[in-house]
Amino acid sequence: MNQKGLIVVVSGFSGAGKGTLIKRLVEKHKDRYTLSVSATTRAPRPHEEDGKDYFFLSEEAFETLVKEDGLIEYAGYCQHYYGTPRDFVEDKLAEGIDVILEIEIQGALQIKAKYPEALLLFVTPPTMEELKRRLEKRATESEEIIRERLLRAREEAKGIEHYDYILVNDDVDETVKHMHRVIRSAHYTPERNEEFIQRIRAELDDI
Amino acid sequence: MNQKGLIVVVSGFSGAGKGTLIKRLVEKHKDRYTLSVSATTRAPRPHEEDGKDYFFLSEEAFETLVKEDGLIEYAGYCQHYYGTPRDFVEDKLAEGIDVILEIEIQGALQIKAKYPEALLLFVTPPTMEELKRRLEKRATESEEIIRERLLRAREEAKGIEHYDYILVNDDVDETVKHMHRVIRSAHYTPERNEEFIQRIRAELDDI
Repeated sequence: MNQKGLIVVVSGFSGAGKGTLIKRLVEKHKDRYTLSVSATTRAPRPHEEDGKDYFFLSEEAFETLVKEDGLIEYAGYCQHYYGTPRDFVEDKLAEGIDVILEIEIQGALQIKAKYPEALLLFVTPPTMEELKRRLEKRATESEEIIRERLLRAREEAKGIEHYDYILVNDDVDETVKHMHRVIRSAHYTPERNEEFIQRIRAELDDI
Repeated sequence: MNQKGLIVVVSGFSGAGKGTLIKRLVEKHKDRYTLSVSATTRAPRPHEEDGKDYFFLSEEAFETLVKEDGLIEYAGYCQHYYGTPRDFVEDKLAEGIDVILEIEIQGALQIKAKYPEALLLFVTPPTMEELKRRLEKRATESEEIIRERLLRAREEAKGIEHYDYILVNDDVDETVKHMHRVIRSAHYTPERNEEFIQRIRAELDDI
């Protein structure tokens, strides 16, 4: 069966708990999953490590990467570029490791267009009341920012049908188990196992 | 999320071990799964119980069921009819129980046409050498019957792409776990959760 790794894109509403889920999943199954490290043109923050938190690049270096098709998706955000370096991802896939990317829907669709076998997961709280509650609990955020995030959630909700699975995050441990289950399952679809299917067909012809 | 049961169709090569897998799965998770009980016009064998092993019907009763659209799939085999009664399946689905059907590809495609949300699983040994070995180990079967089954396997292999998942049965316990994982995952696709998606969209509009 499919020994190659899969690209796993995780999107979902701000406040849905994507970051925590992904962190726990990767910690729990270090042999199976790795987090993609993004490239960015923004300056490193204190304690951020080049090659671990981000690949920190100059604008020129980033644009060269884009020209050479060295990013599998990228986007501009707050006057900086962010993108996913192809080499890192493809090396890990070849080692049989699933690469987890936390990106929003535009990036997710770019990935799916280039890697049709990629798995797209959408994370949501059980209700939108709960989403609002979680955003309000982050004391750091103003009324206005909460409002903005809810409006963005409304936009994001329009794209859910593009995703392969919905993960309702009402309990982190349960949802991490679930996420693992869904990703493992995805390795066993016919479209991700063309080689295996061709092999058993050839074997049956030879018998 | 989706509280309704799913129809789970299990097909695969004769000798792949479908029957054992299904039996174990249902024993292990009695609250989640039930086996569909087929209707047939063939006579009961000793120890077979009506309503448990099969619903034993006269030819007239069977044909009436067909006319009244009371079967979700049926086929003739060795001068007898076999079919899946709709009421049993739909009652269980409404209770939130997944109904497992062991049928071959023609029946599987009939089901998928009527129930697009049905999940189709294809069971295979890891290699066709292994399939042959398993068939030969069943001492009861003649060279000719083995040959016939391998030829049928060749036909069946052409339809694998119609299935949602391939289960490689090299270890029964592992494959049962896997089967459970794959079926649980299937409950979380967007197309099986249209109601949930509509609800969160409506909630976001109201906030």
